[in-house]
Amino acid sequence: MKITAVIMAGGKGERFWPKSRSSCPKQFLSLTSDGETMIQKTVKRLAPLVAAEDVFIVTNAAYTELVRDRLPDIPCENILAEPCARNTAPCIAFAAAVISRKYDDAVMLVLPSDHLIGYEDIYINTLKKAVTVAESGENLVTIGITPTYPETGYGYINFGRECGNAYEVERFVEKPDLPTAKKYIASGKYLWNSGMFVWRVSSIMANIKRFMPDIWEGAVRIGDAFGKPEFTAVLEKEFSAFRSESVDFGIMEKAENIYTIPGSFGWDDVGSWLAVERINETDDSRNYIEGDVISVGAERSTICAGKRLIAAVGVEDIIIIDTDDAVLVCSKNSTQDVKKVIAQLREQGRTELI
Amino acid sequence: MKITAVIMAGGKGERFWPKSRSSCPKQFLSLTSDGETMIQKTVKRLAPLVAAEDVFIVTNAAYTELVRDRLPDIPCENILAEPCARNTAPCIAFAAAVISRKYDDAVMLVLPSDHLIGYEDIYINTLKKAVTVAESGENLVTIGITPTYPETGYGYINFGRECGNAYEVERFVEKPDLPTAKKYIASGKYLWNSGMFVWRVSSIMANIKRFMPDIWEGAVRIGDAFGKPEFTAVLEKEFSAFRSESVDFGIMEKAENIYTIPGSFGWDDVGSWLAVERINETDDSRNYIEGDVISVGAERSTICAGKRLIAAVGVEDIIIIDTDDAVLVCSKNSTQDVKKVIAQLREQGRTELI
Repeated sequence: MKITAVIMAGGKGERFWPKSRSSCPKQFLSLTSDGETMIQKTVKRLAPLVAAEDVFIVTNAAYTELVRDRLPDIPCENILAEPCARNTAPCIAFAAAVISRKYDDAVMLVLPSDHLIGYEDIYINTLKKAVTVAESGENLVTIGITPTYPETGYGYINFGRECGNAYEVERFVEKPDLPTAKKYIASGKYLWNSGMFVWRVSSIMANIKRFMPDIWEGAVRIGDAFGKPEFTAVLEKEFSAFRSESVDFGIMEKAENIYTIPGSFGWDDVGSWLAVERINETDDSRNYIEGDVISVGAERSTICAGKRLIAAVGVEDIIIIDTDDAVLVCSKNSTQDVKKVIAQLREQGRTELI
Repeated sequence: MKITAVIMAGGKGERFWPKSRSSCPKQFLSLTSDGETMIQKTVKRLAPLVAAEDVFIVTNAAYTELVRDRLPDIPCENILAEPCARNTAPCIAFAAAVISRKYDDAVMLVLPSDHLIGYEDIYINTLKKAVTVAESGENLVTIGITPTYPETGYGYINFGRECGNAYEVERFVEKPDLPTAKKYIASGKYLWNSGMFVWRVSSIMANIKRFMPDIWEGAVRIGDAFGKPEFTAVLEKEFSAFRSESVDFGIMEKAENIYTIPGSFGWDDVGSWLAVERINETDDSRNYIEGDVISVGAERSTICAGKRLIAAVGVEDIIIIDTDDAVLVCSKNSTQDVKKVIAQLREQGRTELI
């Protein structure tokens, strides 16, 4: 069966301010020293499994130009522009409806656009297993990441009985507190929920119809209009009318035949500035340094210069990001608070900095 | 007797990089929120004692324009331009020789250009006492600062017998280690050496002649040429030939009739970026913040924005200074290492940043 990929690229990436802006969020930036953007890496690593013409990018309408610029090999009609943000369920329904017009049925990999994978061969092999499971029935397959520590920032997948290449999913659980996360890890029965899904278009459409009939109807109307002159108007009308819903809440927690394939392929969600030292090489003092930087005794710090010199003297565990109009200096313990800077800028009406 | 002031303004102020540059060192900058430069404050606080036409500024030839700009009330002929840096003894000899041409004899206050004084009335009264002692004989008077803690970065003055308004100086001592500094403080017989001196021009000239006859001869030739067409050439020749020597080593440690007046007038030598939070008002989190700054949980930090936004998130005890072409991020424990940044820039030949 034809294998297609749907890359979800509508995120705002606020945790990477000031490098990411609402006009150019994280997935369109490079956070690695090779200069390749996150979304380029995402598509490139799929090449052994999915051809460029079968890759669909769902993104906000404001970012279609950025997608074209970063991914010139993706056909323009494969860039699916959401008129507004409605979370993952409407996004997936939109893509599934379009793909089901193009192919009678197909396998659909649903993947985030802004994660990194360390071991790409293992990744591809894991996806191939998931494809096999997805093809063999009306199964919804999620890739679970084998945890390496009790992270409290991710949701978890509780799995049960082994079943061929996959495990049956018992339930999805929300972000736990630390003692609960430790219990999950100790049990050997929980995986991180990575937000990667594999299923047949027909399987996900059947489940959307069952659990979100309103969204199914709108998606079918969007699919019917695809390629026709009225498409933009129909999309605008139907998509805007969707409620905001995640595919986890809307479908995965309710549907039957949910399976998970455990993956151990060096997954990193690149969730904050802390990730940059993980995903890049650091120097002898465990600093990641980019651009014109003079360090005098800096340690365990991430320092990215823009057009000007950064002199870092005696600093430890700090993140310094310089751009043309803003400098961020952030303690490694406070990377989640970068969002609060954006909140203040929004309050002050300083949209040019957001 | 006429009271004159000699302001020594040749310093490079490297510890205030990147705000201070070799083209505009600390004394010509404002480090306080009122925007007044250090040298302006120095002259202004002398007004009750010394008229502008009796204030002489000794500075490097490269800075004469800066002096004119910052101090338009000082007569141009009172700006004494050293062709090169030769430490304080030649500087003082030059000024004394010039003043002795202008006035038969006069009292000469010798003052740094880049210190701050909290209590200006007490300061002026202390100087007045010193003037009285200086007028009454061939005395060399130094202002000693009553220590408030065992500082290891200053030299100390060991004083003895009280003698009118002053104390006889037993000896000058170099920067001590911490146990020695603590002993000094406990003894009640040591003051900080502030580098402020008061004497008659005739007294200092007599001592220069006795202890540094070579410099005395050159200085007299410079004085003789003052106001004549050949002045610049004579100054260039004689001053360049001087050896580098401090007035402390060259005269104060050898001369007789050395007195000190203890001063408690909120003196601050503004020796590093650490001083900025001392000399300015801080917010509830003990930050000193200047310019366009968003703080999310910053504490005990000094943050000076230039033309761009600085976002400081969760940082503690840090100094952030932004300028057009360089940003400094420095731990409060490492402010002395700012000089190492300049050393690296010099090695790299990046003089435009120094």
